[in-house]
Amino acid sequence: MSRKATASAPSNIAFIKYWGATDLDHALPANASLSMTLEVCRTTTTVQVHDDDGPDTIRIAPGDGTLTTAPDSFNERFARHLARLRERLGVHGRVEAVTHNSFPSDAGIASSASGFAALAYAISAAFDRLDTPEEMSVRARLSGSGSAARSTFGGYVMWPSDPGAPDSPATQHASPDIDLRDVIALVQGGPKPVSSLEGHRRAATSPHFATRQEHLPERTRRLSDALTGGDFDTFTELLEEETIDLHLVAMSSTPPILYWEPGTLAVIRSVRRLREQDGVPCAFTMDAGANVHVICPPSSEDAVAAAISALPSVHDVIRDRVGSGPRNESEHLF
Amino acid sequence: MSRKATASAPSNIAFIKYWGATDLDHALPANASLSMTLEVCRTTTTVQVHDDDGPDTIRIAPGDGTLTTAPDSFNERFARHLARLRERLGVHGRVEAVTHNSFPSDAGIASSASGFAALAYAISAAFDRLDTPEEMSVRARLSGSGSAARSTFGGYVMWPSDPGAPDSPATQHASPDIDLRDVIALVQGGPKPVSSLEGHRRAATSPHFATRQEHLPERTRRLSDALTGGDFDTFTELLEEETIDLHLVAMSSTPPILYWEPGTLAVIRSVRRLREQDGVPCAFTMDAGANVHVICPPSSEDAVAAAISALPSVHDVIRDRVGSGPRNESEHLF
Repeated sequence: MSRKATASAPSNIAFIKYWGATDLDHALPANASLSMTLEVCRTTTTVQVHDDDGPDTIRIAPGDGTLTTAPDSFNERFARHLARLRERLGVHGRVEAVTHNSFPSDAGIASSASGFAALAYAISAAFDRLDTPEEMSVRARLSGSGSAARSTFGGYVMWPSDPGAPDSPATQHASPDIDLRDVIALVQGGPKPVSSLEGHRRAATSPHFATRQEHLPERTRRLSDALTGGDFDTFTELLEEETIDLHLVAMSSTPPILYWEPGTLAVIRSVRRLREQDGVPCAFTMDAGANVHVICPPSSEDAVAAAISALPSVHDVIRDRVGSGPRNESEHLF
Repeated sequence: MSRKATASAPSNIAFIKYWGATDLDHALPANASLSMTLEVCRTTTTVQVHDDDGPDTIRIAPGDGTLTTAPDSFNERFARHLARLRERLGVHGRVEAVTHNSFPSDAGIASSASGFAALAYAISAAFDRLDTPEEMSVRARLSGSGSAARSTFGGYVMWPSDPGAPDSPATQHASPDIDLRDVIALVQGGPKPVSSLEGHRRAATSPHFATRQEHLPERTRRLSDALTGGDFDTFTELLEEETIDLHLVAMSSTPPILYWEPGTLAVIRSVRRLREQDGVPCAFTMDAGANVHVICPPSSEDAVAAAISALPSVHDVIRDRVGSGPRNESEHLF
């Protein structure tokens, strides 16, 4: 049994969003969600398990050779996730961990999905207990991060909402053979937005939440069909409809949550111009944040990246693509 | 009987928005609306009635001494309004009209409200048939512009939605003694947005339209109470809630309508900063367009105008205030 292991896991971008929970602490979602696993945006985590009983520690490797301590809020979720992982695996030991994101930490890209999936993989690997992606999905989700449950598969991932089977894992919905790209526009941001956790809490206070729930099953089915059937026009229409729907629920919750920044609108306008005036297939989506993910076929990627990069309110662009899922890494972070 | 007359009428900004109609041609609104009459933003119109039977003509006075012809779409609505006005008044004659807006024509400020109210006043004055503001409200609304029905009163105006009395006029809801200011931020715009008429047509296609209708009576009552009771905090909360509600219905209609520009978000963010960080009472609202009206008490006006003017995406600021309604003008435009 190796007591030191390193794994990396990808972030993902949801096409149908998880927003609102029936049990937030255990990430029991109000609705099924569907995502694309990314490849470039990922978290790499090294864990070393010691026999003594001291407190777990986690440090962050910004990538410049230094190690920094994590914020308290992160430490709390990390400690809770580790406690639950040890319980599920029936193992013991103090964990020392170092974690590194491939994307800038202030980029506003959700790092909890890749972060907690990578932690679940690294711990499982350290105890030689790696399992199926479905079991790893359940372990990643012990963190309380629902989106982490979708980061243990490559390709396109469906995470069901089944009140009768709250433990049900995500499953692979389509393979990475459907080649889509994600050109991520990082926009100038204001003060830190409301956390996703707080957003989930407020979701049901929106008068429009119930209507969203009514329409989601049909929208999910149609978007899934368009994705697997290669109908990018219908996919575009439904992806943007769903994006607006998530944000209008957030904007109409109490108190209201407005994730959009001026740059968000600039990218949306640019995407529409590209599609409607230049005939470049591409579609926008945003998670609970201001950054815009522009989903497109490979043939659109260069034109999208060029147009988005030229916007003054976009300070960085990441070119990502559908990915193959988590993997063991041979090089340790410490 | 004078056959030449000039009148001016104000624009207005809705606190509770008219969005969606049961009969669009006759502007029978799906819901009651509540507005503040403006003072600075107004249309002045001179009409001269000739005895012959040629076609009516309307020209626009940009204010530089020249006269230009109006776009076809405007001419059509103008001709229809004139036909209905003559029928209601039982009068005849070819109308020659010249009209001038106090605000830039490309400002994106709704000119139909002030424009059709001014036309109704000028025609009525030319035939010496000026009447109560209620009767003038009905005449202004013959244009098919619902918001024109609210521009015949000073102060704050309620336009009811009564399917049993489709002809019911707007009424004054509160006098201009409640001194509110409207700092209007004109933002950089993209291509011309979808017209209000087309927006009204699409409103009911939004899955969230029905929920909006359910919540409007209570919201209208509470906003009205906050306005007349001087509770600006509650007024702010409800005004912004209503604004978001209008735009989320537009954004979720088929096809979706996105009126916001990057500058819209920049102003919203600035308003929130002013209020939450600097303690300056102010509230944002937008009609069916990208420009932002910042409603505030007189004590906030200078701070709001300074903050908004400093935003790079705001190309002009108009300082307006609650107004006294239409008036006869002694100086003719031609």
